[in-house]
Amino acid sequence: MKGMTPVIPDFKAIERAAQRLDGLAHRTPVLRSTYFDDLTKAAVFFKCENFQKVGAFKFRGACNAIAALDPQLGQRGVVTHSSGNHGQAVALAAKIKAYPAVVVMPANAARVKIEAVRGYGAEIVFCEPNTPAREAAVGRLLKERGGYFVPPYNHPEVIAGQGTAAKELLEDHPDLDTIVAPVGGGGLISGTAIAARHMAPKCRVVAAEPANADDAARSFRSGRIEPVAATSTIADGLRTSLGELTFAVIYRHVDDVVTVSEEAIVEAMRLVWERMKIIIEPSCAVPLAAILEKRIKVAGCRVGIIITGGNVDLDTIGDLFSSG
Amino acid sequence: MKGMTPVIPDFKAIERAAQRLDGLAHRTPVLRSTYFDDLTKAAVFFKCENFQKVGAFKFRGACNAIAALDPQLGQRGVVTHSSGNHGQAVALAAKIKAYPAVVVMPANAARVKIEAVRGYGAEIVFCEPNTPAREAAVGRLLKERGGYFVPPYNHPEVIAGQGTAAKELLEDHPDLDTIVAPVGGGGLISGTAIAARHMAPKCRVVAAEPANADDAARSFRSGRIEPVAATSTIADGLRTSLGELTFAVIYRHVDDVVTVSEEAIVEAMRLVWERMKIIIEPSCAVPLAAILEKRIKVAGCRVGIIITGGNVDLDTIGDLFSSG
Repeated sequence: MKGMTPVIPDFKAIERAAQRLDGLAHRTPVLRSTYFDDLTKAAVFFKCENFQKVGAFKFRGACNAIAALDPQLGQRGVVTHSSGNHGQAVALAAKIKAYPAVVVMPANAARVKIEAVRGYGAEIVFCEPNTPAREAAVGRLLKERGGYFVPPYNHPEVIAGQGTAAKELLEDHPDLDTIVAPVGGGGLISGTAIAARHMAPKCRVVAAEPANADDAARSFRSGRIEPVAATSTIADGLRTSLGELTFAVIYRHVDDVVTVSEEAIVEAMRLVWERMKIIIEPSCAVPLAAILEKRIKVAGCRVGIIITGGNVDLDTIGDLFSSG
Repeated sequence: MKGMTPVIPDFKAIERAAQRLDGLAHRTPVLRSTYFDDLTKAAVFFKCENFQKVGAFKFRGACNAIAALDPQLGQRGVVTHSSGNHGQAVALAAKIKAYPAVVVMPANAARVKIEAVRGYGAEIVFCEPNTPAREAAVGRLLKERGGYFVPPYNHPEVIAGQGTAAKELLEDHPDLDTIVAPVGGGGLISGTAIAARHMAPKCRVVAAEPANADDAARSFRSGRIEPVAATSTIADGLRTSLGELTFAVIYRHVDDVVTVSEEAIVEAMRLVWERMKIIIEPSCAVPLAAILEKRIKVAGCRVGIIITGGNVDLDTIGDLFSSG
């Protein structure tokens, strides 16, 4: 990214992303639940990105960034690092365009995620499970082989792609007065806020994160990027710090950043599995947990929640619920 | 039921059921999956009754039977026995009509199911976990208190109610050439067959059951109701024998009854959870298992599968997948 000045995407960038994703990404359904409406005294609309390709919203951003590439650049290959959904998203998006892809993954990544990335035809380079090791591995790859780096969130086209989920949600339900999404690196909440500001200027946009990984809330208060500290949270998708771009969007366009307890995350996840019969990752349960813990007042509101993904490892599924 | 001659329901009974259920039951979505289309070389349409009220198709039959009652009869109360979804279905359907309900449940029923029945306001009477004990308990209740018995499957209005799922599926996708549903007591497959014979006469209707509870397949071959023998199957919703009515419908209107291995059931269930991100009970996985084990030829076909329910006990969820 050296030498480039990345630009904060606007709503037009989200519209272009929607055009690129047309026919490639699913337009995911919006589910309702009488149980949760009664429980929250609100009308809740669940935008189900767990039904998205690769099982997570991450496909939108990765696919938009890769589809936006000049083909000559793309054919030299794309590179990313990920322990989770972004790696699968880049692998599938590259496969669709017939571009080579290399994904740097920690050696201890879940079997099911390694198999999925490999199944989409990407090459995997393993590294030690820490940020310096994965950044070094990506740097080495780019230097030795060339290629285009698709970062997991701090990239205008990734943010614009993620914003297409909220765009669809607001097209289906233009009268929402609140939208809640989880925040990790901030790609999803940034795209969501940009879409909402344009399409529903009065709609409140709230980011939710685990209290045990509260860097976004601290950054939102202090006005600068605070690094993530201890991250002993079950919401493994939200253990990352904000980037420059995503911080700028959140600081400007998001109304509040709230934090939730681990107990509330597990309880919210359990209720969604039990009552809605859909599989969601722990990270997805964070917005609903914030509502159940009354960190966001929603009584009488029309609330959209972006359900971010459904990739859990069935081999260790018993642990998910015994930890609560 | 003494003194009554139950009549096999026709398509008009299903149409009346659909009118009664309008606004009470959900019109459930039909989901697609590129993964399963590729795997089966067919176009597969999943009718998702796991999203139905109480989490299972059983609500359709129970609600229709109870809504069809003369109110004076209903106000004297309804009674049923169930270790599973039918009990919840009767409890909720009675609550909607403000009729008293008593559900006889085995003392070892899953906590979550007991809580659900109680949550819908029904009284629970516990009994020993075997068929003679539950029938005796129902008989005692009817004698002592009166009330109307809503059986789990061998009842014309229950069968007609279950048939509304296939009716909706064929309204949404009139050109299906195969429909597969699991068979336990036979209420769902009977209603499905009656709907399909009327709406899509050329559509093949196939029942699927575990090889370890193959009474329906044996009955279909021998031409008389064969009792269920050993039933060591993970598909706990399918451990029952056919009734007189359901046998008559199956023998006349179903094209084939196929059986599947326990391994295939667990594998099919795992694939649906992993790939579709929806929670299904082991019983629901039986039709897909039959396709994966090639007991039903579907290459090039347009196949409807009725996903019957999503009620699993999250406290013991780890066991579901380690057993495969």
